[in-house]
Parts: sequence; C-alpha cells; structure tokens
Amino acid sequence: MTVLGSMQLLAQSDDTAIGERLNAALAEVEARFSAELISDLPCVNSLVGHVERYRGKMMRPTLVLLSGMACSGSKESLNDSHLVVATVTEMVHMATLVHDDILDEAQVRRGGGTINHLRGNEAAVMLGDYLISHAYHLCSSLDSNSPSRAIAQTTNTVCEGELLQLANRGNADLDERTYFEIIRRKTGSLCGMCCQLGAEFSDATDAVAQCMYQYGENLGIAFQIIDDLLDLIGAEQTVGKTLGKDLQKGKLTLPLIHCLGHSDAKTRQRLIKLLTPNGDNGAGHEQTGNGHDLEQRRAQEVRDLIRGDGSMQYANQWADRLIAQAKAAVGVLEVSPTRELLLAMADAVLTRKF
Amino acid sequence: MTVLGSMQLLAQSDDTAIGERLNAALAEVEARFSAELISDLPCVNSLVGHVERYRGKMMRPTLVLLSGMACSGSKESLNDSHLVVATVTEMVHMATLVHDDILDEAQVRRGGGTINHLRGNEAAVMLGDYLISHAYHLCSSLDSNSPSRAIAQTTNTVCEGELLQLANRGNADLDERTYFEIIRRKTGSLCGMCCQLGAEFSDATDAVAQCMYQYGENLGIAFQIIDDLLDLIGAEQTVGKTLGKDLQKGKLTLPLIHCLGHSDAKTRQRLIKLLTPNGDNGAGHEQTGNGHDLEQRRAQEVRDLIRGDGSMQYANQWADRLIAQAKAAVGVLEVSPTRELLLAMADAVLTRKF
Repeated sequence: MTVLGSMQLLAQSDDTAIGERLNAALAEVEARFSAELISDLPCVNSLVGHVERYRGKMMRPTLVLLSGMACSGSKESLNDSHLVVATVTEMVHMATLVHDDILDEAQVRRGGGTINHLRGNEAAVMLGDYLISHAYHLCSSLDSNSPSRAIAQTTNTVCEGELLQLANRGNADLDERTYFEIIRRKTGSLCGMCCQLGAEFSDATDAVAQCMYQYGENLGIAFQIIDDLLDLIGAEQTVGKTLGKDLQKGKLTLPLIHCLGHSDAKTRQRLIKLLTPNGDNGAGHEQTGNGHDLEQRRAQEVRDLIRGDGSMQYANQWADRLIAQAKAAVGVLEVSPTRELLLAMADAVLTRKF
Repeated sequence: MTVLGSMQLLAQSDDTAIGERLNAALAEVEARFSAELISDLPCVNSLVGHVERYRGKMMRPTLVLLSGMACSGSKESLNDSHLVVATVTEMVHMATLVHDDILDEAQVRRGGGTINHLRGNEAAVMLGDYLISHAYHLCSSLDSNSPSRAIAQTTNTVCEGELLQLANRGNADLDERTYFEIIRRKTGSLCGMCCQLGAEFSDATDAVAQCMYQYGENLGIAFQIIDDLLDLIGAEQTVGKTLGKDLQKGKLTLPLIHCLGHSDAKTRQRLIKLLTPNGDNGAGHEQTGNGHDLEQRRAQEVRDLIRGDGSMQYANQWADRLIAQAKAAVGVLEVSPTRELLLAMADAVLTRKF
C-alpha cells in the first residue's frame, strides 16, 4: 500500500524527484519497522506477521517526513530522527488498530482477518502491547528524551480520547463538542504531533512547529470525520474493513448527532432505538460473529433515516472547513514542492473512498 | 497494603530508621503514582480509581528503593531518579495486571472486582494502555534516555513472555526449560531491572549493578513459582484473587509439568484431560462467569493427583534454590541494614501465603 499511497501523491506532485525521495524514506521506515519487531521467539515473529495485514496508507509517517522536508529549507532533506519517529508513529498507530479491534470486535480490517478474530482477544491484547512497547523502545534510542516525552504525552491523550468515547457508548445525547473532543484526542493529537516533530527535527522555529501541529491536527480530525462517514455509508469492498461497527457499538458520529438534533420526535425515537441494540453495550460482546445480516439491515435503516435531512452534507462541510484550516496553517511555510504535497495530502482526505 | 508490606519488612529489620525511610519513600511513590494519572476528564479519573483495588505489596518499587539504598554506601540515601523509576515500575506492573485479567478472564483480583468484570474488556484494554502510556511518559521526564530505554527493553521482554505462555496454552508437552523461559521474561526481567536501575542511580559499578539484576531476576522467578503454586493450592480468601485460573486456561506450571513427566500413563492421561477443558482454549471465553463449581471440582481433582507424587515439593525446592542464588548475589554488597532487608525480602517470597 505504501507505493500506492506515494504514487497517489506523486500523481499530484510536479516534482517526481521529491516523490521518489519520499518513497525511499517510506521504504526505509518499513524496513526499520520490521527490524524493530524481530524477536528471538518464533511464536512472536509469527504473530507479528499478522500486523503486515494492517499496513495501510502510512499516513502518519508521511506526515512526519513531508513536514520534515517542508521545514528544512531548499534542500528539503531528512535526518535519522525523522526516520526513527516516522517509524514510531506508525507503530503506535498499529498498536491502536490492534487494540481497537478488541474494542470494536471488528471481524475484518484492511481486507484481512483481524488478530482477535484469528488468534483471540488475548493474543490481540499482547500483540498491541508488544507494538507499543517497541514503539517507545525505538523512540528512546534517540539522543534526546524530548521526542519520547512528546510521543508518550500524545499516547496519554489518545487513550483519553478512546476512554471518553467508551464512556459515551449509546449516549443519544452526545453533543458535538464532546464528539470533537473525542476525535481530536483520538486521531487529531497523533497527526498533529507527527507534523510538529517532523518540523522540530528540521530545526523549525516554535512558531512554525506550532503551525505544523495545527495542520496535522486539523487534517487528522477531518480524516476521522470522513472515516466515520465511510463506516456509515461506505462500501465494505472498497474500504476493506467491516463497516457499520460504530452503529453496532452505539458509537455516535457527526451525521447521527446532527440528525438526532434536527429530526422530528418520531425519527429521533426510531434512531435512538436503532443506536442502542438491546439497550446496553455489554450485549455487543455476545453478539460477535452472529447477527451480521441483522446489523446490515439496521445500518441500512439508519442510512435511510439520515440521508434525507442533510446530515451527511453537514459532516462533509465540517471536514471541508477543517481541511481549509489545515491548508491555511501551511501558509507559514515557504513555497516548495513538499509544501505542495502537504496541501495535496489535505485535499486527498476529502476525496478518499477508502 | 503498602504500610502492611513495609511493616512486614520492618518487623524483620533491626533498624527502624531504615524501615521508616523506606515507608516514607513508598508513600512518595504512591503520591507520584496518583499525580501522574490525573486527567482533565472525569470519566478517566473514575476508571483510574479502580486501579487502587490492584494496589498490592509494592514489591517492584521496594526493589528499586532498597537496591538504591543498599548501593549508596553508608548514607543509604535515595535520589529523585529512584523515586521516578520506582513509580514507573509499579505503573508497568499495574498495566500488566489489568491486561492479564483480560488474558485470564479473572473475576476477582486482590479481593476487588476486576476492571474487565466491572467495566468490560474494552475499558480494561484502554485502562491498561493508559497506565503503560503514563509509565513511559513519567520515565521520559528524567534527564537521561537510558532508563526509558531500559524499561522499554524490559516491557518488550515481558510481552514476549506473555506471548510464549499464550502459544503454549494447553500444551501438555511443555518442558521445564520453556516454562522457566516464560516466567524469566514475564516476571524475572522486570524485577531484575528494578534492582539494576536502583543500583545504577546510586552510581554502582556495572559489576554490582549486574549482581543486583541477578538478585532481582532470581527473586522474581521464585516469586512466580510460588504464585503459580498458590494458584493451584492456595485459599482464595487468603490470596485475595480468583484461583485455579491457570488450570482453567490450560496454563501448565511447574508442579504439573513435573507430575506429567513422572506419573504413570493413566494419571498422565487423566491430567491432560483435566488441563484441556473442551479440548481447546477458545472455549474458555464462553465459559466466563459460569461453570465456577465445575472449575473448582476440576482443580480439586488436579490437586489430589499431584499431591501424591512430590511435585509440589519439587516446585518448592526450585524456589528455595533460586532464593539462595538471589541472596548469594547480594553478597557483593557491603553489610548494611538495607542489605539485610534485601535478604529478608528474598526469604519472605518463600513464606508468603498471599
């Protein structure tokens, strides 16, 4: 997927040299990723092999690398710290995906079986822990402690976002403010830190590093809104992971929050019933594996209910606004091919179908 | 439990001043532990509140502190790094307990409901992640990166131990070598690192720091052997956590491995049947909550089978040998009240009933 991801950027880039340098750096990140996870225990290596299935768009490493190149002046160069932290951010992201599959009981992720589905929840918990442990291990190989501190601060925030989301399962009164607080912490914070550290490793000023954080955070939040939309209306084959999971677990996302706030009492009551299977979340556990058709029908009815009233458009407008803010933040940088790639990457968040 | 734990040491100490200084340091560790975990989100703080129930003997912080005092010469003093890393090791240990409860589906831990039992597996996964994230966050507040590197290296090893154990679920042919490899990584490595870092922060020589690692590793392995024995033959009220869980999940421990290797074919076949409920591990998932009486009867039959043939004694002899090695390693230190406490702590591992 890496090459695909980069090719898409390349297609939008006027400078193939930059695109090729980005590809080379991403390949180096993949090599360091694999090298870091090697164990002397065959059973560990075989489990880690499953992680390959999770390899996706490498968005976070790309954010570190492009931010680093864009902030390093005309040479648009990278150093070892960029490559280390780019690898660390992908490892952190992988760990959250593995543990999210326990959270969400997803049966399919990226078109492959999930760890918990293939090996059970216990293996998924331990594999996620193994990934996060190696992420911190790799990060602490840098001379300075401050990237480790920044990454740990960010994972603190990501966990808080996940816990806030969990605390609001099946809460039909979830407001927009809380929804944005959840996705800012869960997704925005890591994307923001990717760009900030990329800038800092290129000796950017604090002001520029802060703008880069804003770029990454807004891009990440918009990415999550689109991700939530795809979970609701996307085609499973295209997205390559089980959809309708947010509904199944009573997770309210932006279009639903908007619809609940703007629909008549009858529609609202029907939606609330659809959003709270068996009236509690715990029931979700026993449901795993069965009732897939039931879930699909439920998802379809929810889609039909919200399609009418412009809630999808409302969510898309929010994503548009956040991407505009992300692009504005990049205005602090000198014009360069990598700055163009950062802008193109922001636009790509809005147009992605997967 | 901290005070109790320290009072036990005090009772064995000739020097109450040292005991009081240890108590004061452990109280400071508890204060830093709580301070590190405070969030601006009430839902996070309420979940973290459950962790208090896990608070136990504070063995790992005590190892850091006593090792630091014993290696600092006649003043037997501690510095900030000792307190930070003592707090970090307890946080790491808490995270593994929370995630182990998902692994082991334990319904009771330390006399209180487990997180997964009270709030579901998803909350337990995220709370464990929150704890481990804050452990690395706190550790990276030190000036040097090397403690962070050492702790992450250790958590890599702990995860490998858990995964090796998982890979050998229900494996009736598990040999002693592999069993020791599992508990060395799972329990020995963190206890060893506690003592090594405690020594290093007191400017001990590499040779002394390595002896302290040997002390902690051997103590930790012996502790795990006794822990496994208590799971098999202990009284639930005294130990304060659900017992017989190893059996329920097809986890072979030392007395069982010895018995399987030394009993007649008929006993062996019966034991194997008892160790593999429904012939596979996955079944364990659905069994949660029910079949508790069945499990108790199964545990009783296993106890009766192995009581006869000296397998318990065999495991106890191994623990004795490891504790003797741990105490020998401490011989490198000058005689001091804290060295006496390290020796007393090693002996306490053999006599504990909880």
